[in-house]
Amino acid sequence: MIFIGERINTGFRDIKQAVTDKDPEPIKKWAKRQEKAGATYLDVNLGALSSKPEDMCWMVEAAQAGSSLPICIDSNKPNIVAEAIKVCRDKALINSTTATDEKLDAIMPIAAEHGAAVIGVVMDEDGAPKDANKRVENAGKIMAKAMELEIPTDDVFLDPIVMPLKFMQEQAKEILSATGQFGLFSDPPPHIVCGLSNVANSTTNKSLISRIFLAMAIANGMDAAICDVMDKDLVNAALTAELVMNREIYADAYAKR
Amino acid sequence: MIFIGERINTGFRDIKQAVTDKDPEPIKKWAKRQEKAGATYLDVNLGALSSKPEDMCWMVEAAQAGSSLPICIDSNKPNIVAEAIKVCRDKALINSTTATDEKLDAIMPIAAEHGAAVIGVVMDEDGAPKDANKRVENAGKIMAKAMELEIPTDDVFLDPIVMPLKFMQEQAKEILSATGQFGLFSDPPPHIVCGLSNVANSTTNKSLISRIFLAMAIANGMDAAICDVMDKDLVNAALTAELVMNREIYADAYAKR
Repeated sequence: MIFIGERINTGFRDIKQAVTDKDPEPIKKWAKRQEKAGATYLDVNLGALSSKPEDMCWMVEAAQAGSSLPICIDSNKPNIVAEAIKVCRDKALINSTTATDEKLDAIMPIAAEHGAAVIGVVMDEDGAPKDANKRVENAGKIMAKAMELEIPTDDVFLDPIVMPLKFMQEQAKEILSATGQFGLFSDPPPHIVCGLSNVANSTTNKSLISRIFLAMAIANGMDAAICDVMDKDLVNAALTAELVMNREIYADAYAKR
Repeated sequence: MIFIGERINTGFRDIKQAVTDKDPEPIKKWAKRQEKAGATYLDVNLGALSSKPEDMCWMVEAAQAGSSLPICIDSNKPNIVAEAIKVCRDKALINSTTATDEKLDAIMPIAAEHGAAVIGVVMDEDGAPKDANKRVENAGKIMAKAMELEIPTDDVFLDPIVMPLKFMQEQAKEILSATGQFGLFSDPPPHIVCGLSNVANSTTNKSLISRIFLAMAIANGMDAAICDVMDKDLVNAALTAELVMNREIYADAYAKR
């Protein structure tokens, strides 16, 4: 399972303050904590706080000072991605392109040039699709662009766009169905990822809904998530689901990781 | 979700003692407790303690004295099933036939005659299949027999045979795959059930493994389980998975059931 730690995001008050004050300590602390909890990547998200690439670069450097994990550059602005990727010590994961020509033409060449991996969110000019078929169609467009630029499928992460269960309950089945179909695109298949926290938006059982949805998505081939890696129940649910999928070998102590 | 409470089984010491002493109280107590916990059926299993139909009938009557739930007659002996079904107050669920001609010819006519539902375990003369394809083939044989006897598909519960993750880890994926294919047999599809506890046999994280496997099976169309209905985490996991599948309507308080 590829766990992408969501915590270095200016949507969280302490991170917003840290970026405003240029105090690297809270970012270093969350980098360390998420690494210890088992994160594979650290998502770094400047959000709406600033549109300056140098602020994103500063965040990436602060995160790298706190851990040895690779960075997931979370921005939909090509100029920010283009600068941030230059300060990444290791192979980065770009989060994200969509399936629109504008984003594909701006973001995918950056991934190709730097040998980075890239998340393709299956959104198009009309926004987020309402059904599985349109999600798969948009994913196909992203895969085609990756092939054109010779980005290996193993460096493509497709994101089916997870919707809040509370407000768009009928979407969950479509998302799982799309996830299952993404795995058929190529051999080896692309990775499949989601921004997990959205599924439990405004619910009273956030952790329960997140982990059960993730297990069900893993049953359909998902192998990565941008999520709260500090949630032990979530991590244990994902590790158990991976055992069921025979991706990891069973050992009695597995859930003590 | 159809929860079939597993607790009235002579494999449990208190139930064994109750049957030996013909003391109905422990059986009544577990009937009540499982009903309160949300069970849909009460599984009643005489096990190897006795081969007398009258002992099974006594168990069924004790269970019925403790709750108003219908009975799942858990026996592979046709003579026991044939007698026990006569004392069932409501429509019973027979657990089970296999896909062998011998069992199909003995058990399925009892279901047809009494208008009962029946669990078809996809085992054949060679035992439990090792892959998804053979499971689906055996399920097809059970479905064909049901059609021949005009048992409605809604009264057929297919059981893909859950294996212990610890000892047969590679089987879990085959079971999930078979489960997904069972749903394609008919419209409306048959029910899909499993004896859940087996998946976590001899593991140190029984409840975690059981509930994550069940959520993944529900993602593939399972809608019933013979399980520990007293395990609140398990019940909440299943209810959450049903919300994700859009089978129940979301309400903030759903997990307080």
